[in-house]
Amino acid sequence: MGAIRYELIKQCRQTGARRGRLHTPHGIIETPIFMPVGTQATVKAMTPEELKEIGAQIILSNTYHLHMRPGEKLIEKAGGLHKFMNWDRPILTDSGGFQVFSLSELRDIKEEGVTFKSHIDGSKHFISPEKAIEIENALGADIIMAFDECPPYPADYDYTKKSLYMTIRWAERCKAAHRNTEKQALFGIIQGGMYKDLREEAVREMVKLDFPGYSIGGLSIGEPKPIMYEVLDWTTHLMPENKPRYLMGVGSPDALIEGVIRGIDMFDCVLPTRIARNGTVFTSRGKVVVRNAEYAEDFRPLDEECDCYACRNYSRAYIRHLFKAKEILAARLATIHNLRFLLKLMENIRQAIMEDSLLDFKKEFFAKYGYSEK
Amino acid sequence: MGAIRYELIKQCRQTGARRGRLHTPHGIIETPIFMPVGTQATVKAMTPEELKEIGAQIILSNTYHLHMRPGEKLIEKAGGLHKFMNWDRPILTDSGGFQVFSLSELRDIKEEGVTFKSHIDGSKHFISPEKAIEIENALGADIIMAFDECPPYPADYDYTKKSLYMTIRWAERCKAAHRNTEKQALFGIIQGGMYKDLREEAVREMVKLDFPGYSIGGLSIGEPKPIMYEVLDWTTHLMPENKPRYLMGVGSPDALIEGVIRGIDMFDCVLPTRIARNGTVFTSRGKVVVRNAEYAEDFRPLDEECDCYACRNYSRAYIRHLFKAKEILAARLATIHNLRFLLKLMENIRQAIMEDSLLDFKKEFFAKYGYSEK
Repeated sequence: MGAIRYELIKQCRQTGARRGRLHTPHGIIETPIFMPVGTQATVKAMTPEELKEIGAQIILSNTYHLHMRPGEKLIEKAGGLHKFMNWDRPILTDSGGFQVFSLSELRDIKEEGVTFKSHIDGSKHFISPEKAIEIENALGADIIMAFDECPPYPADYDYTKKSLYMTIRWAERCKAAHRNTEKQALFGIIQGGMYKDLREEAVREMVKLDFPGYSIGGLSIGEPKPIMYEVLDWTTHLMPENKPRYLMGVGSPDALIEGVIRGIDMFDCVLPTRIARNGTVFTSRGKVVVRNAEYAEDFRPLDEECDCYACRNYSRAYIRHLFKAKEILAARLATIHNLRFLLKLMENIRQAIMEDSLLDFKKEFFAKYGYSEK
Repeated sequence: MGAIRYELIKQCRQTGARRGRLHTPHGIIETPIFMPVGTQATVKAMTPEELKEIGAQIILSNTYHLHMRPGEKLIEKAGGLHKFMNWDRPILTDSGGFQVFSLSELRDIKEEGVTFKSHIDGSKHFISPEKAIEIENALGADIIMAFDECPPYPADYDYTKKSLYMTIRWAERCKAAHRNTEKQALFGIIQGGMYKDLREEAVREMVKLDFPGYSIGGLSIGEPKPIMYEVLDWTTHLMPENKPRYLMGVGSPDALIEGVIRGIDMFDCVLPTRIARNGTVFTSRGKVVVRNAEYAEDFRPLDEECDCYACRNYSRAYIRHLFKAKEILAARLATIHNLRFLLKLMENIRQAIMEDSLLDFKKEFFAKYGYSEK
């Protein structure tokens, strides 16, 4: 049977978009979906109840961070990540690969695995594909990721090719190491940089390994958006229709829409929560830096079209005051709002797919948001 | 009529404790009560809904801070402090006196008022009794405080005496300046340092001015607790029975109980919220520094007898992890818990007064809490 099942409800007639349903051990996820990121076993500034109130169906947590602190053994003792953090809906954990390559120092990449120094205390660590899966099995998320290498952008063809084949071998090793296939679905990660033949090769090889789902990695790492969309165009149409497709690290409103159009079902990104804590919020008319002086006497909500707790109860003037005064409630209200904005966007996208009006929706959204396509 | 009315429900047969009810423009407060502090128009880390959930009946906000940022004019434009911060229950504002003397730099105290430099940007400001009331009238709290001088501890007799008479003259000026007596009740502040005759004189003079309530200032500023209790013993029995009595700056569990026993109706303190953000929580068995290593694998709640959201849903191990990882949810959970602990303590105290069992309650509470009286 396996841990998850993807049910395709409707294929968009205008685009590659899919309206689906992902059945997991902790409930059903309506796709396409955006997943808020709870790096350290908490979505920053939020409680689980608040996440549910804004419509979060699944959250992501980071294997690298949890391995470093508090450690997967402690979380296993606590009864697993769901219980530890009091979240009873689905969780996805990444493999730690991305953080090992982006956060840690002095990493040494070998076929066997990666040696690196902790970003917290400089201590030395080693993660292999087997170790990554061991950690993810201990954490107990519904969906777990294979350990991969994410080459930087730009990376030359030879490096990217070598890296890709190692990632494919690592994926095989991850699959062999996975001990909990009935409760945790292991996704393969498609790499291949910005090279068409490598992306195609990546899909072919990963599909051979028959994972219950696939993520597309190595995008949203600094490349221009048109390049990202081109890579998606090369990739998603080769992916099996009966498996979920997850684009890692994407969370800007425009890229969510473009990703869905290209057949993506799942997204995650720290962007909405990170910019929220810095005082920037999404609105239906584009981003607003609410900490700016121009909002000091603006008694309107962050976004007049938003239904979130922050918009129902507080003014821009008050939220700006909270930011200037460095109050915790500032981060809370902006985070609630930004996540709700993206989750509501995904609700609207799902509805547009059902109504075969996704391109119209995109046009209207972009016009209002002030986003012009290149 | 005036803005508020104090209704004495029951006088304790064992002690000076009073069970009462304070009627205000924004609702009824059951006394004795602890008031959470929302210094900058927000109780740090909390929403108004969360404050209601833990039983907060009234909160305090700080005139000095709000005058500095965002300014009372902005708050007045927003429709007043209640509306600005989305809190529809009673609010009390202090006069800013304490902060002017403790926070600001280069203060120059004259009969006319105090000149000082802002703790935020060093800009020069002047606050007189009239100015303090003007600010408090603009903020619109249900209960407002007269502008006073709070002498440091220790302070000699002559300084304290001179200061007291100035505070009395300032209280008269505050009363004359108050423009909103039907919606905001102005309390006089009883000073007099640690000197019996000065405290007695302070009560006599303030009572002559016939304020709708009185606060006792100049305590909990570094003096040993037995001295504070002695000052209360000299003072409260001289205060009118039909007016509320507010002890400023007190919030440790033992001092709340001792204060109630000496006839105090209202308390406020930043202690519970401040220590919460540093990882220290009250429990029925004494304080716990939950960020300490000994709680790393402690899967019990912060306090097994507590009914708060944090204790119902999270372990010490998880909350410790949040503190180590510097997550906002750490401050949120610890703050909810500490405030609930004190509000529940006040509920228990009110019940004990009704049952004439306050001394038994105190004995049991202290024994369990591990507090020994000097």
